[in-house]
Amino acid sequence: MNAKQMLRIDSDRLWQSLMDLAEIGGTDKGGVCRLALTDLDRQGRDLFVSWCQAEGMDVRIDVIGNIFARRPGTDPSRRAIATGSHIDTQPTGGKFDGNFGVLAGLEVVRTLNAQGIQTAAPVEVIAWTNEEGSRFVPVMMGSGVFSGAFTAAHAHQATDIDGKRVDEELARIGYAGSQPAGEVPGGMFDAYFEAHIEQGPVLEAHGKTIGVVPGALGQRWFDVTVTGMEAHAGPTPMALRHDALLAASRMVDLVNRIALEQAPHGRGTVGFMKVMPNSRNTIPGTVKFSVDFRNLDDSGLAAMEASLRSGCAELAAGCGSSVAIEQVVNFPPCHFAQDCIGAVRSAAEALGLSHMEVVSGAGHDAVYVADLAPAAMIFVPCKDGISHNEIEFAEQGDLAAGADVLLHAILAKAC
Amino acid sequence: MNAKQMLRIDSDRLWQSLMDLAEIGGTDKGGVCRLALTDLDRQGRDLFVSWCQAEGMDVRIDVIGNIFARRPGTDPSRRAIATGSHIDTQPTGGKFDGNFGVLAGLEVVRTLNAQGIQTAAPVEVIAWTNEEGSRFVPVMMGSGVFSGAFTAAHAHQATDIDGKRVDEELARIGYAGSQPAGEVPGGMFDAYFEAHIEQGPVLEAHGKTIGVVPGALGQRWFDVTVTGMEAHAGPTPMALRHDALLAASRMVDLVNRIALEQAPHGRGTVGFMKVMPNSRNTIPGTVKFSVDFRNLDDSGLAAMEASLRSGCAELAAGCGSSVAIEQVVNFPPCHFAQDCIGAVRSAAEALGLSHMEVVSGAGHDAVYVADLAPAAMIFVPCKDGISHNEIEFAEQGDLAAGADVLLHAILAKAC
Repeated sequence: MNAKQMLRIDSDRLWQSLMDLAEIGGTDKGGVCRLALTDLDRQGRDLFVSWCQAEGMDVRIDVIGNIFARRPGTDPSRRAIATGSHIDTQPTGGKFDGNFGVLAGLEVVRTLNAQGIQTAAPVEVIAWTNEEGSRFVPVMMGSGVFSGAFTAAHAHQATDIDGKRVDEELARIGYAGSQPAGEVPGGMFDAYFEAHIEQGPVLEAHGKTIGVVPGALGQRWFDVTVTGMEAHAGPTPMALRHDALLAASRMVDLVNRIALEQAPHGRGTVGFMKVMPNSRNTIPGTVKFSVDFRNLDDSGLAAMEASLRSGCAELAAGCGSSVAIEQVVNFPPCHFAQDCIGAVRSAAEALGLSHMEVVSGAGHDAVYVADLAPAAMIFVPCKDGISHNEIEFAEQGDLAAGADVLLHAILAKAC
Repeated sequence: MNAKQMLRIDSDRLWQSLMDLAEIGGTDKGGVCRLALTDLDRQGRDLFVSWCQAEGMDVRIDVIGNIFARRPGTDPSRRAIATGSHIDTQPTGGKFDGNFGVLAGLEVVRTLNAQGIQTAAPVEVIAWTNEEGSRFVPVMMGSGVFSGAFTAAHAHQATDIDGKRVDEELARIGYAGSQPAGEVPGGMFDAYFEAHIEQGPVLEAHGKTIGVVPGALGQRWFDVTVTGMEAHAGPTPMALRHDALLAASRMVDLVNRIALEQAPHGRGTVGFMKVMPNSRNTIPGTVKFSVDFRNLDDSGLAAMEASLRSGCAELAAGCGSSVAIEQVVNFPPCHFAQDCIGAVRSAAEALGLSHMEVVSGAGHDAVYVADLAPAAMIFVPCKDGISHNEIEFAEQGDLAAGADVLLHAILAKAC
């Protein structure tokens, strides 16, 4: 069978499902704001579950609200081949981040059903809880609990900025399930594939359709608190100030320099900052901000952390302030299973799709799942490499190509 | 009559009134949070008005909510000698900023009443509305409307962060008065004195009790908006970023450098900053922040503004971002009336109090009143020069000394 004769998913059906889901929390600028465990998240989950049930899938919910939808296989001794991603979004997120991976998995099942194709192994489509981490830390909460990176009890007590707890919000929206963490019927997955927009500019720059993802950058995240002394902006001479924002601003510049020293894979970002008391004519007494470091190897991450700690201490002292740095996330770099990577590459080749290796700069649920099961990812281009933005966009044809690769990678493993 | 025999205010009575007023909006850390036109501000105003009425004073409210309490004089042809300050506070403010000047004026009247002293001219004690500007811009709103710096209509339509309007809040708390802006019975004041804590470290450093204030630094305030492009922190290479917070952080450092270049009187502060979308793993797309520049002469302020505009444009371009700078406040430097300055100095000398000249780094209601009437200010030390802070503190003896100087400056003008 040549590429033209190979089974393909229904591109229009996949696209329409993406557009339908994006209406829930849709923003005026064409993006989506559907934060984890909100009423809008519940509406999105309910829609996904209804679609799975319409395909005859068996839906289970685990203790952290992950949704598992299973299409049975013909061989009771086979463990499931799984795929999935997440449907929560950033506050000003797009239509495709996460949603594509979940709906591509659903589209694979719809295609198998429509064609009457049976697989020996079950096929499981998963929507992981709170991948984004915008509302609740830690990020990738659902897959993290599933993999045992942290406990459900730990995740349950996380609170949002208004003090609302994860366990209460799960119960409130009706997704506090009973499946124990890390347990799936018939044993752990034989393989896990996750399709995702690249969220970076590499595929677009190279004119390739499919990214074969060998692994993901490690990440170290920090909460930094700078403490100076608030005082009246007018009568306090410059030399006698303890300006926490001046110190913090120099630290933002330091984070940038540290990342540039670790080119090409080093990344450093301050995405969050809170200034107190945040009044025009009061010198800030306290500033809190986040640091997000990424790199391809642990030694590089360790060097970045060391530079942050020594550099911030020096900058704080220079502003008559003090600084406290707390690590809140530590993901080591991830290397996916050769077997699964090979299945993705083979599917792309069989389908006649252009492809290249792209390291993931972002964390993904697949990184946690890779601790329990052989895993790999499939990237498709997104316009200008932009995501976590309302203007995030991916071409229908590229999304369909990614779902086709997912279909054939799953078939290679499930048959 | 030597210094020992001179009339003095009642130090304990003044202190107790300060403590009583500070209970309204008092914070756990010993400060006060009594923002303009809130329910707490109403409680503070009501208490002040009740105290004035207990002294037989005639209380009037003008169209911007300024409170005028008059003790009549014996000569109907004489215009009033006025004093006052404000009772609104910063979000994390102290007990003395503003409150001291209002209650020192009340204490002068209480002392005159207790001693049965009549004055030829009326004595008027004023509480100006919204001096701090923390909740509503422009700052020094009450004295600004009174002086004609801007209209009552302009001030009325100012909104707080929740969209509440000044005129609605004035009506809600019962302080939307009828006295036209800038009009007082019998004609404009013959003199205006304002007692205030220094809010800086100069008196303390020199071991002096009384600051004779010849004038105030000019101020130029700006709203700065940096616009970059939000994107996912992980997969976006450093070189392709449009990081609005990186640009803004370098601008904060620029503001500091600009102020240092204008030593000793130049001051530059970024007190407010808002980062959007303010999510840990999203490169900030927009940052808004405030700039507060102060200097003793207009040419210095102009140089600071020029450096800000050119420097920010360059820094924004270096981060692939753009910047917009809007001026929101422009107070020229103020020079008080020699006659009133002399009355303050003479009173301090007659009372045997140590004194020195201290330029005001902060804006004060007296600066606006000086446009209509001869004016001057009296400073007293505050601990470590700290104000706009819950730990702001002034010694009872220093406050009493300042009120004594106010008493004798007023007597010199009103008899």
